Amino acid sequence: MHPRQIQHCNQCGTAVEHRVPEGDTHARAVCPACGHIQYENPRNIVGTLPVWEGRVLLCKRAIQPRYGLWTLPAGFMEMHETTEQGALRETHEEAGVEIELDGLYCMANVKPVSQVYLLYRARMLRPHWEPGPETLEARLFGATEVPWDQLAFRTVRETLERFFAEQQTGRYSLQIFDID
Amino acid sequence: MHPRQIQHCNQCGTAVEHRVPEGDTHARAVCPACGHIQYENPRNIVGTLPVWEGRVLLCKRAIQPRYGLWTLPAGFMEMHETTEQGALRETHEEAGVEIELDGLYCMANVKPVSQVYLLYRARMLRPHWEPGPETLEARLFGATEVPWDQLAFRTVRETLERFFAEQQTGRYSLQIFDID
Ligand SMILES: [Zn+2]
Ligand SMILES: [Zn+2]
Repeated sequence: MHPRQIQHCNQCGTAVEHRVPEGDTHARAVCPACGHIQYENPRNIVGTLPVWEGRVLLCKRAIQPRYGLWTLPAGFMEMHETTEQGALRETHEEAGVEIELDGLYCMANVKPVSQVYLLYRARMLRPHWEPGPETLEARLFGATEVPWDQLAFRTVRETLERFFAEQQTGRYSLQIFDID
Repeated sequence: MHPRQIQHCNQCGTAVEHRVPEGDTHARAVCPACGHIQYENPRNIVGTLPVWEGRVLLCKRAIQPRYGLWTLPAGFMEMHETTEQGALRETHEEAGVEIELDGLYCMANVKPVSQVYLLYRARMLRPHWEPGPETLEARLFGATEVPWDQLAFRTVRETLERFFAEQQTGRYSLQIFDID
């Protein structure tokens, strides 16, 4: 989701000014009453490619945006967790699947919405899953089975394309790319 | 810097409640007046290891925290930039040095302050730099010259230790680690 523009100071409630503070390089939401500067920064989306016998577990979204389209288990990283912990948490919440992480697979910048995807390859420990409330259903897909025209996000498509291409070679390397 | 706890809705200014919204898993700052939920998420710190003839350019901080201690050029990623663009911008702002990125070198989670460091190796195009206002001075350091007891952050120390160890082998690989 896009964050809405800051209108009020989150420390004292006064209406903010949007201006470049002295010594700064970017416009910020500055409070004329208490002086607090409310920063906005890009957010990380952490998640996994859960793999069982070469097939990847995708989740059909039960929430907006992109209701009914397929995605990897992933979501916003929370305070006081590491990227690995966030990836495990999101996979557990959305797919209800037991996994072990196999290393960072993709770092993708989605500049228009100020998001950074950090997705890990993961080994499913058994072919069993239990989707959470944000997921209509989950299913394993091989390279030829992926619903390419029903994927929720371009980052997911790009990641899956790269993953299945590398799967042919048997060797995986960190994928770094930008989505405009 | 630690973000201060959210006290007021940044959309309407009303004092927020801190509670777990329906269907959510974490406590949030929820506005009882307009219903807006103000999320907080970890922030990325982007920067570089600028290298000239095997030595790394460090910057002596002219700002708090850690005034007078040495660090790599790095800072908070801004909205509407990629991690690469952020790393280049911070290096330019803090060290005033022309570089080309050589690839992501380190991803470090600093969970207690909810920060993720993303640092790139970078080639300096010439042995010239011009520190910005946040830097007292900048200087090149080889493995045996680094002021190990005057480094500003543990992430910087850990990254430099790993970099100079790998320098012996002539091969660099992505470093992923956590700082508690
Ligand atoms: Zn204020
Ligand atoms: Zn409100």
